[in-house]
Amino acid sequence: MIIRPAAEADETAIMAIVTPVLRAGETYAVDSDLSDAAMRDYWFLPAHAVFVAEDAGGILGTYYLQANQRGGGAHVANCGYMVSDKAQGKGVAAAMCEHSQVVAKEHGFRAMQFNHVVSANVRAVALWQRLGFEIVGTLPKAFKHPVHGYVDSFVMFKMLV
Amino acid sequence: MIIRPAAEADETAIMAIVTPVLRAGETYAVDSDLSDAAMRDYWFLPAHAVFVAEDAGGILGTYYLQANQRGGGAHVANCGYMVSDKAQGKGVAAAMCEHSQVVAKEHGFRAMQFNHVVSANVRAVALWQRLGFEIVGTLPKAFKHPVHGYVDSFVMFKMLV
Repeated sequence: MIIRPAAEADETAIMAIVTPVLRAGETYAVDSDLSDAAMRDYWFLPAHAVFVAEDAGGILGTYYLQANQRGGGAHVANCGYMVSDKAQGKGVAAAMCEHSQVVAKEHGFRAMQFNHVVSANVRAVALWQRLGFEIVGTLPKAFKHPVHGYVDSFVMFKMLV
Repeated sequence: MIIRPAAEADETAIMAIVTPVLRAGETYAVDSDLSDAAMRDYWFLPAHAVFVAEDAGGILGTYYLQANQRGGGAHVANCGYMVSDKAQGKGVAAAMCEHSQVVAKEHGFRAMQFNHVVSANVRAVALWQRLGFEIVGTLPKAFKHPVHGYVDSFVMFKMLV
């Protein structure tokens, strides 16, 4: 598996991963009924640097990296990660998260923050914790999950330097 | 003092409050060297409902209200408040915050979240606490203050229903 910046030719494969995750509405605070084009615009925001993880079989996952805030908050990075259904359980998310921390440090970021990790997404929470992120905040009932109803979200944070 | 939706004619008076606060770079995570036009665009984002507090002497303060997230997070409101230098200490911020909670409830929001309250802004932190907001998260060294250097920021949250 290699992880590299996304190229224009990757867009269809990337959105084949991103669109179903956003349509499910279980993990990202994004309208699940956006048009495909709007979902594309969300993932490829101008401020996002987009990466892909791939092996010989194709693209396994994608992530974006951006500054979480501007001005006095511009030294904290933010990322979102998604893994193809077919590539679950192979360590793709962990590899992308490690990669993103290296890239973030190269770009001068001093920390990384996830603003809204849905507590029901227990695998993600456990993975980020294993990779050194701490739950620094709990947002009570801040996410309306399509199956579980109102659930807490976590703010997770890791110092990089 | 009354609080009402901003009208187009209020823009100059609003930006006379907003621009110096953003230029100071001490409380909002916004680039302090944005152009005046970009600062205007920041305060009047299409997603922002903008309000003003005024008395017979003119506009004393302004706030915006928006959804803090989309999708599963769209039931949590977010606001930013600013008070004119000349109107400090008169309860304008408190009045605007109370007003914003009423408006938020009218619009169906179930909670209100402030994402990035700079810990060095002790008056604001104390005021929001007095008005029922809790510090639900601490973002370590997440704000580079022009005077104090890297300081913590707080995530503050209040249930409205």
